[in-house]
Amino acid sequence: MSGYNNILVAIDFSETTGQVIERAMEISSRYDTNLTLMHVVEYSPPMEFAGDLGMTSDWTIDENDLIKGSKKSLQKFAEKYKLSSSPQIVHLGTPKYEITQYAEEGSYDLIIVGSHGRHGLGRLLGSTADGILHHAHCDVLAVRIKE
Amino acid sequence: MSGYNNILVAIDFSETTGQVIERAMEISSRYDTNLTLMHVVEYSPPMEFAGDLGMTSDWTIDENDLIKGSKKSLQKFAEKYKLSSSPQIVHLGTPKYEITQYAEEGSYDLIIVGSHGRHGLGRLLGSTADGILHHAHCDVLAVRIKE
Repeated sequence: MSGYNNILVAIDFSETTGQVIERAMEISSRYDTNLTLMHVVEYSPPMEFAGDLGMTSDWTIDENDLIKGSKKSLQKFAEKYKLSSSPQIVHLGTPKYEITQYAEEGSYDLIIVGSHGRHGLGRLLGSTADGILHHAHCDVLAVRIKE
Repeated sequence: MSGYNNILVAIDFSETTGQVIERAMEISSRYDTNLTLMHVVEYSPPMEFAGDLGMTSDWTIDENDLIKGSKKSLQKFAEKYKLSSSPQIVHLGTPKYEITQYAEEGSYDLIIVGSHGRHGLGRLLGSTADGILHHAHCDVLAVRIKE
């Protein structure tokens, strides 16, 4: 069986993302392949009925600003890990859908994502790893985060 | 970050297990480490109240026979893939618990398991990969099964 050729790593900018990127770098170096870094800004567009609740346009967030800010953060993150030449992708939406769809379209053969397990924070944070596992059309490596 | 040193692969004897073992062999060869093969016989001991339902002892299955049969199957499986020198473990119980507990006790740093995704059969079969992801204290590679 051939090795992995095209690896996508999900970056969430949490304190523990370093553990995920370090494992991803170790694997991509072993497979002699490039990494693509992907961050998804978790954001749902304003609900259509918001107007009925008396919300004004001050509530709306400029989606382009969100994307721009995250692109800068991802660029800095990549610099920190000497990965500036790696493709950097920022999408807006639901991480599990955006990541697995991007991986499928780009023919990635491995997605790497952090996993917090079931205890404590993991009950909330584990859902992205779960969702990616369910929806991915390729292999998924869940990196166990040490809290 | 150092590479994986101790890899445990979950074998379920299904038609698609070949895809999992082939990926596991590719990875263990790349990391120059041994694989341990583990099979869990999914089995719950007879319920205590079975007698009340008029069930006779004919219903009980000898647990030792189950283990013995599975050990033979795992041995044959290992021979097929030229892995006879790899440790072969058979437990009786719930796969997610047995596998993650064995991995923790043996200081494994990677568990490899097949994943059927969410569609079709995967809704039923995916639960082992999910459960392992939740309970593992180490990294988990879910190998996407091509049906």
